Amino acid sequence: MQRKIAVVLSGCGYLDGSEITEAVSSLIALDQCEAIYTCFSIDKSVVEVDHITAKDTANHRQCLTEAARIARGQVLPLSKLVEDNFDGVLFPGGFGAAKNLSNFAMKGGVGEADSEVKRVLTNFHQASKPIAAFCIAPATVALVLGKYEIEITIGNDKETIAEIEKTGAHHVECAVDDFVTDRENKIITSPAYMYDTTPAKVFSGIQKAVREFVEMA
Amino acid sequence: MQRKIAVVLSGCGYLDGSEITEAVSSLIALDQCEAIYTCFSIDKSVVEVDHITAKDTANHRQCLTEAARIARGQVLPLSKLVEDNFDGVLFPGGFGAAKNLSNFAMKGGVGEADSEVKRVLTNFHQASKPIAAFCIAPATVALVLGKYEIEITIGNDKETIAEIEKTGAHHVECAVDDFVTDRENKIITSPAYMYDTTPAKVFSGIQKAVREFVEMA
Repeated sequence: MQRKIAVVLSGCGYLDGSEITEAVSSLIALDQCEAIYTCFSIDKSVVEVDHITAKDTANHRQCLTEAARIARGQVLPLSKLVEDNFDGVLFPGGFGAAKNLSNFAMKGGVGEADSEVKRVLTNFHQASKPIAAFCIAPATVALVLGKYEIEITIGNDKETIAEIEKTGAHHVECAVDDFVTDRENKIITSPAYMYDTTPAKVFSGIQKAVREFVEMA
Repeated sequence: MQRKIAVVLSGCGYLDGSEITEAVSSLIALDQCEAIYTCFSIDKSVVEVDHITAKDTANHRQCLTEAARIARGQVLPLSKLVEDNFDGVLFPGGFGAAKNLSNFAMKGGVGEADSEVKRVLTNFHQASKPIAAFCIAPATVALVLGKYEIEITIGNDKETIAEIEKTGAHHVECAVDDFVTDRENKIITSPAYMYDTTPAKVFSGIQKAVREFVEMA
């Protein structure tokens, strides 16, 4: 049976939204597994970051409208995501996953997830439906589900690991083309651009993780 | 020997720039072939299109800064692209390839390519270095090289085919997961989102086309 997967974006561009290669790799891999996906995004206004200078600009961008660039217009606000309608939920990375979906980027392991993100993660976890998260997105998952001592990876960055472990989560070091599975909590994570790496390696790790995720869904 | 490939973007988002899945598929496939790529973009201000409503907004976007979202900051203006430094050039699609890199979207087969695009295409063709173009990007290639009666595909859209053939180019119908090679002119094209299709199919066509392209480079 074809699995139905919700993909949660946070904008379009790794400095103020979803990391584009990770998001596209996720959609390609889900489609290769014959899963049917629906894209969602948090719907809020965030400070625009210039992706050449890596500096904030004076402008704002709307995460949902930006996410539509990745999703070719087919994107719904996260408030419309009902867990009953899906077999699993997937979060690509990018700073948006730690700035827009939560305040992990500012507050680390004592931060909080956005209320809609918290609702979604809690509901999927309680329903024992798998959660996939890539790059820095596992940090936002940890803010909500760290109390269950989940096992996740964000690669090997010491400072980020220390922050994540404040939530109760356990970090497992992982290569870019590999992934970590917490079978008990049904959480699959892959480090992607937490490393200084290249698109084929990111795709390889995400593709393997997505196969495991869809099998579990 | 590792091949050096120039990738020409036109923004970030299929309605006013590069089609994101096509651009990322190209970068993944080039990396899988162990080609070294450098991203370039035309550097001009274009009307922003809202990717939810598909309507023009009152704002403008700078193609180069937007392309940096796909290229993670590593993007140069097209004026810096010197053919001597590369073994081939690749153009992903998206409306940007027919609105920003040329005026094909407005003027069809009697339109003109941007002067920098014209220079790049002419130089690579004269040097007998391969040119890859996906989705609607072959239409811009045709505006410059149609006089050589090049063989290209843009899928099977009758109106677009009629416009392309005004340039002297010959159209070959092609499935989404396949590609067309003009061996004499070293032009490789794949239809991608010229069809109403899905990411894995787009990736499959581009991946096959890129393998051929890199072998030819």
